[in-house]
Amino acid sequence: MTTPLAAKIARDYGTPAVVIDMDRVERNIARVQAACDAAGVRNRPHIKTHKSPELARLQVAAGAKGITCQKIGEAEVMAAAGIDDILISYNLIGDEKMARLGALLGKAEVTVAADNPVVIAGLPQAGAIAGRDLGVVIECDTGRKRAGVETPGEAIELAKLIAASPGIAFKGFMFYPTEDGWAVAQRFFDEALAGVRAAGLEPTIVSTGGSPNMPNVGKLKGATEHRPGTYIYNDRMQVAAGVATWDDCALQVYSTVVSRAAADRGILDAGSKTLTADPGGGLEGFGLILDHPEAKIARFAEEHGMLDLTRCNERPKVGDVVRIVPNHVCVVVNMVDEVVMVRGDEIVGILPVAARGKLR
Amino acid sequence: MTTPLAAKIARDYGTPAVVIDMDRVERNIARVQAACDAAGVRNRPHIKTHKSPELARLQVAAGAKGITCQKIGEAEVMAAAGIDDILISYNLIGDEKMARLGALLGKAEVTVAADNPVVIAGLPQAGAIAGRDLGVVIECDTGRKRAGVETPGEAIELAKLIAASPGIAFKGFMFYPTEDGWAVAQRFFDEALAGVRAAGLEPTIVSTGGSPNMPNVGKLKGATEHRPGTYIYNDRMQVAAGVATWDDCALQVYSTVVSRAAADRGILDAGSKTLTADPGGGLEGFGLILDHPEAKIARFAEEHGMLDLTRCNERPKVGDVVRIVPNHVCVVVNMVDEVVMVRGDEIVGILPVAARGKLR
Repeated sequence: MTTPLAAKIARDYGTPAVVIDMDRVERNIARVQAACDAAGVRNRPHIKTHKSPELARLQVAAGAKGITCQKIGEAEVMAAAGIDDILISYNLIGDEKMARLGALLGKAEVTVAADNPVVIAGLPQAGAIAGRDLGVVIECDTGRKRAGVETPGEAIELAKLIAASPGIAFKGFMFYPTEDGWAVAQRFFDEALAGVRAAGLEPTIVSTGGSPNMPNVGKLKGATEHRPGTYIYNDRMQVAAGVATWDDCALQVYSTVVSRAAADRGILDAGSKTLTADPGGGLEGFGLILDHPEAKIARFAEEHGMLDLTRCNERPKVGDVVRIVPNHVCVVVNMVDEVVMVRGDEIVGILPVAARGKLR
Repeated sequence: MTTPLAAKIARDYGTPAVVIDMDRVERNIARVQAACDAAGVRNRPHIKTHKSPELARLQVAAGAKGITCQKIGEAEVMAAAGIDDILISYNLIGDEKMARLGALLGKAEVTVAADNPVVIAGLPQAGAIAGRDLGVVIECDTGRKRAGVETPGEAIELAKLIAASPGIAFKGFMFYPTEDGWAVAQRFFDEALAGVRAAGLEPTIVSTGGSPNMPNVGKLKGATEHRPGTYIYNDRMQVAAGVATWDDCALQVYSTVVSRAAADRGILDAGSKTLTADPGGGLEGFGLILDHPEAKIARFAEEHGMLDLTRCNERPKVGDVVRIVPNHVCVVVNMVDEVVMVRGDEIVGILPVAARGKLR
């Protein structure tokens, strides 16, 4: 079965097509903004999910205080589109990056994250190029085990190092607590705060992160802002985490069934180059087919999605166009130059993914 | 430890950077061409790996007979660059695709694959637009369980259907045998060949596929051509399959160590948006770090590669630039707009990945 909208998408654009419902996008933006407002923290959405200045402007218009980027290239695209107050939540290293960061800081309010002295030693270059201080927040790891210092003592030492360095200014702390680790983050923050205050420093940014953390927004006493990203589109992981419903999933991949070589098998024209092999933290299969939820996207070739139909009573036919909610929406958007915008059953137009491919 | 070339790449382009060694590219092209020549089959390389007209021209100049594409969008880019004789090895469905396929057929020699009557019923549209017959090969599955008819009887029936349809012409059979399934493919082909000959048809294309199948090239009696793709760059999967050495791996991702938050952990600036979560058919970790082969790229965030360093005697420092052979090179290239070309220790320039993002 092909919905009327799916037939229109296939006719006008072909498949696979990445489609976003702007009614749902706007609803997601409004809901998370309201939750941040209610919690008394500023919303600084992470644009790594959508990579679109137009959508960033919608987030700012709804009340977001600036944005978060993961790469300088993303920040350059956003600043060129007039978005100010950008946090690059990443350790940036090297002369090439410092030159670009300095140029960016000359045009927009920019803060970066750092978790070690090597990174901090390079950052003054950017401040010198811009002729004004670059703000730096210290990334603190409270259980996620990616970047971030592991102890308040290290955070305090780095804060002092930043304060003693020309061209950069200590701005505060950046956290990305695990969903059940907010008490741990609180203890870390309280100790780090006491330490920097003893050194005569005061944080103005205390940032928490994550769409799956939306139920926890505001729980860190002293937090000033939150950095949710995926909520603008949502995906199978967000539904699994209990922070979104299927109706909140604003992005769907439309794909045609191109083969039914055997009774229990089918082939979609969306493979790992469209949906990615992201396992979504252990979900079954590589996406949910809304039209055939019992079907399993069992494995991939690059341009083939191999369907296991053994559990399906009603099975898709060759030529059917189906709608898929991906496991992880951010990595899907990262591969496409544009998405098709719809509202309900109507096609609205094309949205370029302007910061796509900005891997540095 | 950072090699002098890695330092230059980081200085001139920043990291992560996708780097190809043109000496290795040319050597890989020559070796596989020679193997096809020796086996007496034409080489029709699959451009899904590199997505670059410049590299396709190198393959043709070395002796390749045409190319293989997986998507019309890829074929459009290649035809615009003057590449003729294109096999699109995929079931194409829908009016939008038929209009583009017809336009393409007006400019270049094009053959497509089909494995079912629904696909075949649509193809005459393209022939009618072009004013000449579209060649069609029947995709046959002999064990891989993706697209392809499962029995010679079905293949024979489809051949007759194609022959009876206006605007399209039966051209032959397309196989992608499993590496240990060439005897199965031979039996399938012999029976299908006898069947179509009994119907007065003669195949002119009998195509086999796959870089991991290079040791088997020519083993299918009656094969006219082979479609290897990954061999131009190679990757960890090809090395694991025994068809390439590390020195044959022409593409490497250069990445900076941006954090060493704990003694046993490190963070690369290459995450799932650079290396992808492709497990490479069950390899340990998500790429081999040539400079630290005992390190494991254990898991990803989108822009973080999380290193497990427990097995390393010598551990990378923050700021080190390392070289990574990805698990699966094709999906890495699919995310980048350009690659950096080098020869040995010298940077040659930038190569656009012109057919990147052509998902339809």
